[in-house]
Amino acid sequence: MIIQPVVNIAEICARKGVEHVVLSPGSRCAPLTIAFARHPKLTVRTVSDERTAAFIALGMALTTGMPTVLVCTSGTAALNYAPAVAEAFFQLVPLLVLTADRPPEWIDQLDGQTIRQQNIYGQHIKQSYTFPVDFAHPDAVWHSERMVSEALNKAVAFPAGPVHINVPLREPFYPGPGEEVTFDKGVKIIEEEHNTFELNPGQVNQLQQEMQQYSRVLVVAGQGTYEQQLLDSLDLYAETRNAVAVGDIISNVQGSSLIIRYHDALLATPDENKLKELQPDLLITFGKSFISKGLKLYLRKYKPEAHWHIQPAGDVADTFQTLTRVVRCAPAHFFSSLAGSQKAVTTSFQNVWQAMNEKAGNFLQQHVGEAAHGELAIAARVLQALPQQSHLHLANSMSVRYANILALQPTQDVRVYANRGTSGIDGSNSTAVGCALLSSGITTLLTGDLAFFYDRNGLWHNYLPQNLRIVLLNNHAGGIFRLIDGPKQQPELEPFFETHQALNAENTARDFNMSYHAVHSLAELEEILPEFFSTEAGAGILEVFTESSGNAAAFATYRQEVRKIRY
Amino acid sequence: MIIQPVVNIAEICARKGVEHVVLSPGSRCAPLTIAFARHPKLTVRTVSDERTAAFIALGMALTTGMPTVLVCTSGTAALNYAPAVAEAFFQLVPLLVLTADRPPEWIDQLDGQTIRQQNIYGQHIKQSYTFPVDFAHPDAVWHSERMVSEALNKAVAFPAGPVHINVPLREPFYPGPGEEVTFDKGVKIIEEEHNTFELNPGQVNQLQQEMQQYSRVLVVAGQGTYEQQLLDSLDLYAETRNAVAVGDIISNVQGSSLIIRYHDALLATPDENKLKELQPDLLITFGKSFISKGLKLYLRKYKPEAHWHIQPAGDVADTFQTLTRVVRCAPAHFFSSLAGSQKAVTTSFQNVWQAMNEKAGNFLQQHVGEAAHGELAIAARVLQALPQQSHLHLANSMSVRYANILALQPTQDVRVYANRGTSGIDGSNSTAVGCALLSSGITTLLTGDLAFFYDRNGLWHNYLPQNLRIVLLNNHAGGIFRLIDGPKQQPELEPFFETHQALNAENTARDFNMSYHAVHSLAELEEILPEFFSTEAGAGILEVFTESSGNAAAFATYRQEVRKIRY
Repeated sequence: MIIQPVVNIAEICARKGVEHVVLSPGSRCAPLTIAFARHPKLTVRTVSDERTAAFIALGMALTTGMPTVLVCTSGTAALNYAPAVAEAFFQLVPLLVLTADRPPEWIDQLDGQTIRQQNIYGQHIKQSYTFPVDFAHPDAVWHSERMVSEALNKAVAFPAGPVHINVPLREPFYPGPGEEVTFDKGVKIIEEEHNTFELNPGQVNQLQQEMQQYSRVLVVAGQGTYEQQLLDSLDLYAETRNAVAVGDIISNVQGSSLIIRYHDALLATPDENKLKELQPDLLITFGKSFISKGLKLYLRKYKPEAHWHIQPAGDVADTFQTLTRVVRCAPAHFFSSLAGSQKAVTTSFQNVWQAMNEKAGNFLQQHVGEAAHGELAIAARVLQALPQQSHLHLANSMSVRYANILALQPTQDVRVYANRGTSGIDGSNSTAVGCALLSSGITTLLTGDLAFFYDRNGLWHNYLPQNLRIVLLNNHAGGIFRLIDGPKQQPELEPFFETHQALNAENTARDFNMSYHAVHSLAELEEILPEFFSTEAGAGILEVFTESSGNAAAFATYRQEVRKIRY
Repeated sequence: MIIQPVVNIAEICARKGVEHVVLSPGSRCAPLTIAFARHPKLTVRTVSDERTAAFIALGMALTTGMPTVLVCTSGTAALNYAPAVAEAFFQLVPLLVLTADRPPEWIDQLDGQTIRQQNIYGQHIKQSYTFPVDFAHPDAVWHSERMVSEALNKAVAFPAGPVHINVPLREPFYPGPGEEVTFDKGVKIIEEEHNTFELNPGQVNQLQQEMQQYSRVLVVAGQGTYEQQLLDSLDLYAETRNAVAVGDIISNVQGSSLIIRYHDALLATPDENKLKELQPDLLITFGKSFISKGLKLYLRKYKPEAHWHIQPAGDVADTFQTLTRVVRCAPAHFFSSLAGSQKAVTTSFQNVWQAMNEKAGNFLQQHVGEAAHGELAIAARVLQALPQQSHLHLANSMSVRYANILALQPTQDVRVYANRGTSGIDGSNSTAVGCALLSSGITTLLTGDLAFFYDRNGLWHNYLPQNLRIVLLNNHAGGIFRLIDGPKQQPELEPFFETHQALNAENTARDFNMSYHAVHSLAELEEILPEFFSTEAGAGILEVFTESSGNAAAFATYRQEVRKIRY
């Protein structure tokens, strides 16, 4: 039987700009599968592990900025989406999650693949809808069409995020003989013109007045996607207002040469006078989360007089415990509106940050150049070798930290992603795959062995993108626990924190027809990198082996030395 | 710093009979990790993939009947438990889930691994608690101790299930220098004497009176764990009351020779007169879910006059749409109380069921004996070769169906498990591993390729049990979709339902140091099975390759022929 309102879900998605659907096979979801698979304007891929499927969809939506549609059958399939749904919720990534369900009368009747799917994503979803199950009354059809438009509008409205429609379906699921699936061109669509989130001239004027009180303005960019207009307005603001701008590698503002990028290193100085010189009067933040723990601890201690956070809408976090004002507008608009009229004379506040940034950068370059084979030195060589116009995914936990310490150079045209909404290690392979599938150029994933094997199913499907490159830092353990204070002093370190794992990726590469290179030294690494990153090389895994204890020693050395930089 | 109430969680668990803890590494959960790891009476294992960890814990609790404790760090770790928690909820398996969390003041502040963990398992948990975070007031200590006792009491009280304690923890997480973890022997414990769920003599008398009205009594056993007392009382009841008793393979009552076990085959007959002869006046059910779709459809069509479901407590499902009465007592008590005083003369109702059961059994034996290489014939040989005193885990979706059609013989001393609470394919490897870890004798998992590779991380840890045997039916696809009506007629069959997958398990076996046998014929299979199941063989994978289309043809033949049995 054909349920036209279910078929029309696909039509409404296509009409509202959705292009990509990731579905996981199932019987209950067959009406959705057929509707999406037969729609001429939608590209459908099928991925069996729903945890993976959802992270691939996340990677796609991150790359395109448009919602990816997820379709799964009833039962725990929907629960396997939950980690990626939570990541999308906190990273503000639009997803439309469609879960097939039994009709209400069959819930809790011990039938197969039947759980309680209403509101299944709890507090990690922008909204949960229940699709109608009976369409005898025309209002139910109106309801169903309105719901899909509303859900998609909500998914992309700032702050973007995942929305869920639970779709109860009664048998029969399949078109009968002679029945044909047709998409209803007259289906109701609700378009939404989104707010531009601009301040009015009065607000701009008032903020300008207030800003005059502060001579030491520090801008800190949180995680965000690359946006040239934002970069330009931030540059203009910093230049004309003597402001200092700091950005983690995941903020995607390191393409500007004005940006302070070695803050994690420079804030390690024990010189309290220097640290005092870095303290802002006014802190301006925008974007999502911040990686550098050094920066967080610094700002929580050396508090600004005022802290403005620029965010168009939604709940605001007080990450540094310093927040005094929320400004509701788009960051690019804020910085262009509040930029001065001419270039200001460089002040001592900018100078001290810039000078320290330069020294920290020089130190890092020298340090990793001279360091023995270890993860920080390896990550440095990988970052340096990244192709232009490429994408970089950073797995939690140490990969993203190493990369953030090292930073990208302003000349590097590389977009950076990391699942910092929830900072889980559960979906990095899949997220990188989703990105690689929908982007040209190379997509590189820098990951550790725990994150890589955790999400091994990220490679288990029929769409392995040839532009994917995985650099796997394999220390056969959760090496982070040997690097942080606390666990390394406990007798439980090895069995219960580090958790030795024996795998290497050679068999995995064989399973998925990926090229494989095992590397044990920096010299080998430097030799292989250009070839590995060449377009012709195809999908590959570059596995760099280290010893967890050696990494710990090397990182301890880095930490000692970074404190000794003379500013 | 040592937080004594957190340390005492481990003590209370141990005192209340918990023996096994599965933890996943993390920093936030360190106080829990240290408390459990140092407790002398608890065995702690660490598994990195939380989805796997939770299914392993489920397998352990299924095997021991006691709650397994799960410990994870904050963030999506907790969400990765959700599929196994839902399975435990519907399969009534006791688990105590401890999730470390940030303290309340740091929720939604963009810190790493921070999500909204309160009530995170929604409607799939018996109860969710929040552990106190401040212990300055003595009532908070009382609260914390009471909560752990209450949670464990609730987990095992019928209907058993998972309970959740969210544990917010502030830094520092680790014992300081000179601090020592000690378990408080005086900790408060609340014991719970559980109900025996017995009827009083008046109730028994009344039920006996009413039962006299019905001459055709059919007992159907749902999923349940093996219980000799139940088997004895069911036998006694059936013998003395002329009742027919039917049991799927997962009901664990096939050890009685009285049990009808080929119901899926015999109910396939198109002979409406015969089907009419099988119709009960009174249907008595107990236990959890039923596999046989034929049985469900039969009873929904050939409805009994009355349907009593025997269940001590909790919500009751109306699986056959025939329910008229719920009897609140233990099934073993019900059957022994309502058995007659002497053996009754065999009636025609019993005869017709028994005769058809025998013919269906003979047909099946002959059919699979003569059948070409295909999944049903393979499964038959595997079931036949199972060692005595062993455990059998059946993966969803076709594995459990094949095994249920074939049934076990009364002489086979084999305990059967399947994740039929939610019927997901997401955790069968892990569940079998959990069982194998805590049982003597062989644990066999019969699984398909989608279920096996979905849960490949079930083997990714340092505890691979040598008594584990995996029989993998690899048709390189979700073969079920070619066997059921609907998808097989759709153009989307191959890409979007079956979902071809290219892997075989050879590299996986190599990765995890398991023996590996690839088999392509029934002759090879028969030759390898005795060796494979020998105790000395160690952990192994026996991969039996078939073609999805060949299986479909063979199963179609089975379905035609089973209809032709002359009764």
